[in-house]
Amino acid sequence: MDTIIIYSGGLDSTTLLYEERERIALAVTFDYGSNHAAQETACARWHCEHLGIEHLVINLNFISRYFHSSLTAGADAIPEGNYDDTNMRSTVVPFRNGIMLSIACGLAESRGLKRVLIANHSGDHAIYPDCRPEFVKAMDATMIAGTYEGIRLSAPYTGITKCEIVKKAAALGIDCQKTYSCYRGGELHCGRCGTCRERKDAFAEAGIIDPTKYED
Amino acid sequence: MDTIIIYSGGLDSTTLLYEERERIALAVTFDYGSNHAAQETACARWHCEHLGIEHLVINLNFISRYFHSSLTAGADAIPEGNYDDTNMRSTVVPFRNGIMLSIACGLAESRGLKRVLIANHSGDHAIYPDCRPEFVKAMDATMIAGTYEGIRLSAPYTGITKCEIVKKAAALGIDCQKTYSCYRGGELHCGRCGTCRERKDAFAEAGIIDPTKYED
Repeated sequence: MDTIIIYSGGLDSTTLLYEERERIALAVTFDYGSNHAAQETACARWHCEHLGIEHLVINLNFISRYFHSSLTAGADAIPEGNYDDTNMRSTVVPFRNGIMLSIACGLAESRGLKRVLIANHSGDHAIYPDCRPEFVKAMDATMIAGTYEGIRLSAPYTGITKCEIVKKAAALGIDCQKTYSCYRGGELHCGRCGTCRERKDAFAEAGIIDPTKYED
Repeated sequence: MDTIIIYSGGLDSTTLLYEERERIALAVTFDYGSNHAAQETACARWHCEHLGIEHLVINLNFISRYFHSSLTAGADAIPEGNYDDTNMRSTVVPFRNGIMLSIACGLAESRGLKRVLIANHSGDHAIYPDCRPEFVKAMDATMIAGTYEGIRLSAPYTGITKCEIVKKAAALGIDCQKTYSCYRGGELHCGRCGTCRERKDAFAEAGIIDPTKYED
């Protein structure tokens, strides 16, 4: 048990939580005031309790206060359309992964842990610079240089698609109904925003029945 | 005006604030619950008002809550002795500069700025891994990779001593009485902790009269 995972409660990080559960000492959810924080965090809490993994929720309220992003500006600010469309760019929280990874890195060193896990995947690259392989490599080097123990970053889904993650989730027996993706943050997934479309497409492509209840 | 500075209100970052004031659009002070936060922040506020630079104070209360460090554990937890002694290691807040730089990087991108400044110097290297040249280089690469605009990190004091910073401060006409260093956080500098000794030594070595009022 040498690992911290950055754990939102979405499908990707839930799959990684189950896949690496033997090594995970601590799961950290960052609440940065996103529209879907409450729904995601409830899912994160459920899976951590289910697996008996310690879970922290860290509030980053400076993000909604000082950063500009439609992701923290209420459901109606979220664009509809495909996940890779340029209109999804309004949902970017600048350098969000850098911020979450830095805090997790400090927390890892503070607790004597050695590794930080994050579940970014290849579908994120088109929109988010801090999900790309170059970023992952540079951040790993930064964490090694900036800590006594040389904390390492592991982002094992960087090169795989969400479809492959859905297949992993099915193989691990994860209850995907208890994961949340929708950027609008309603009780049900809206089915129309970029993340809902990406979720639907991933299940369809994987040939696995999508258990998600969509509004539409 | 394309720059954010990480600005504690200490001697080093105050000197950098004055030196780069023409390019600084925003100064950010991070309050991570250190013993000396109130004293430092008051100094930071004073200099920003004096120079007409916008100033934000961002609270990182998760650090005092979840990280272990004598720097956030009350004045009596701070060791006495030289700044480079191994007993100063208890004052480390793990990956503190990584955390502050990541947030400043996101804020820079959010505001259309291009550069983040930090005032770590060569005397910090012995104790703090996230002040060393390797860290600065890796963090710069991470910020470039993780942002649309390729935000850059500049840490111009990485290779110079605190004595040289004191000389710069004098040349810039900075009122050093309005900067704060003591890790114990009292109204007067204690004169005995590592940062107080380092401050005294820097003025002595520079041959400049130290205007600081010490308890001893």
